[in-house]
Amino acid sequence: MYSRQQLIDQIKRKKSFLCIGLDTDLQKIPEFLKKFPNPVLEFNRRIIDATHDLCIAYKPNTAFYECYGAKGWQNLIDTCKYIPDNIFKIADAKRGDLGNTGQMYAKAFFDEVNSGMSFDAVTIAPYMGSDSVMPFLAYQNKWAILLALTSNESHTDFQLSDNGESALFEQVLQKSQQWGTDEQLMYVVGATRGEAFLTVRKHVPNHFLLVPGLGTQGGSLAEVCKYGMNADCGLIVNASRSIIYASSGQDFAEAARAEALRIRQEMETELHKSGFLIDD
Amino acid sequence: MYSRQQLIDQIKRKKSFLCIGLDTDLQKIPEFLKKFPNPVLEFNRRIIDATHDLCIAYKPNTAFYECYGAKGWQNLIDTCKYIPDNIFKIADAKRGDLGNTGQMYAKAFFDEVNSGMSFDAVTIAPYMGSDSVMPFLAYQNKWAILLALTSNESHTDFQLSDNGESALFEQVLQKSQQWGTDEQLMYVVGATRGEAFLTVRKHVPNHFLLVPGLGTQGGSLAEVCKYGMNADCGLIVNASRSIIYASSGQDFAEAARAEALRIRQEMETELHKSGFLIDD
Repeated sequence: MYSRQQLIDQIKRKKSFLCIGLDTDLQKIPEFLKKFPNPVLEFNRRIIDATHDLCIAYKPNTAFYECYGAKGWQNLIDTCKYIPDNIFKIADAKRGDLGNTGQMYAKAFFDEVNSGMSFDAVTIAPYMGSDSVMPFLAYQNKWAILLALTSNESHTDFQLSDNGESALFEQVLQKSQQWGTDEQLMYVVGATRGEAFLTVRKHVPNHFLLVPGLGTQGGSLAEVCKYGMNADCGLIVNASRSIIYASSGQDFAEAARAEALRIRQEMETELHKSGFLIDD
Repeated sequence: MYSRQQLIDQIKRKKSFLCIGLDTDLQKIPEFLKKFPNPVLEFNRRIIDATHDLCIAYKPNTAFYECYGAKGWQNLIDTCKYIPDNIFKIADAKRGDLGNTGQMYAKAFFDEVNSGMSFDAVTIAPYMGSDSVMPFLAYQNKWAILLALTSNESHTDFQLSDNGESALFEQVLQKSQQWGTDEQLMYVVGATRGEAFLTVRKHVPNHFLLVPGLGTQGGSLAEVCKYGMNADCGLIVNASRSIIYASSGQDFAEAARAEALRIRQEMETELHKSGFLIDD
């Protein structure tokens, strides 16, 4: 349960619109953690402890948990539970299936009684259309975050395909306006092509956008803000590897905090520049 | 590990190209099973025991397992293990994420050492393009099954969007020819619009197609075969609810068998008609 206003309030309070991606890979976490009974969960807890005052959202990508079977899935559940209640929780699951089955996915991520997990938002691949999105919109103050323009190289394969009026990613933005409001829907727009936010904002001026592709993938925060920020901030900008793997030593959590702090400070500057934060 | 030839051999031997969808919903299974310690697994085992000589593939949809958390995920693993080795195992997961993350999804479904599961194939949503598909193609004799033209009503939202040369689902068929061969790639094409198979076969004459939408969703087997069958059969036709919920009583497994048998007989007729099976 997380309303648009709660999100805006949190951004104001923390002077941050940072999301930290918990893409926790057993091969990449510090060696010394491997003596713990549950290294992945230990890693996540320490990252969350070290950064939760600097970010407004955490986003575990489900792939990194599924690859370790039922134990991995339990880690996803326990990670979700460990994230403080007042922080926005995104399951980066890129799900999508027709009505009957879509309801089961919505249960999996939103309905704690059934699944043990209560995320505030799930990312969704829009290929199957409205049927695959509506089940998520049936939950009040939960969010469906549709893939629009992703940050990976091969986004050009289909997302730019133009039907004479607009590219596929624009069709996703347009068509989905009939399915729900800016209190239920967000969109994934990669940071790697800043000027594309101009096009996105033509279609969805008010919506929040989840923006991956900063840091390791090379996107620029200044560009994203220049073209993508709106009066309510309207951005949740994610960094994963550049934060959680900032150091591979004993000091990984402090290093993660330092990198999150660095990004948060840039974000504060942008929030002032845009007028969202008023200078004291 | 399952080659194209093994699939063809199995179809020949069983005179069937039936896939049974294990979309096992705790709300829909017979009441008497609920006294068992693990009703879902008990249900799946009995369905598999009653039908494995009539079908060539099983296809659990992951949503129905994820919605029960880590225990559900364990049921998916145990169901995968219970399916006899010589039967094609499809994880209907509709995953898709960029390279680094895509590799984790491939591990989750293909790499038993890591995840406890060894499916032969995974369904994939193609919205993110080649990056999200390639990690699955790195496994020999494993399959990526791309969504092309799905059976749900809102497939019209984006899949028919035309760039002046072809509809999006055709672009998926065309573009993906550069990514892999008919020994690695299949496509999902819904049974609900039989004549659409003509268009599909123009682009992928040799590929196997996974065909949902029979039975409850109203597709016609005769139409699918008329327009979609090729010299190697080239079809894996799925039925889920019409088989597994054929009865809600003590006799559910026998009823499932009877319905699977009915479909298999229709399939045998079609295989003779096409010349794939030679009359004795």
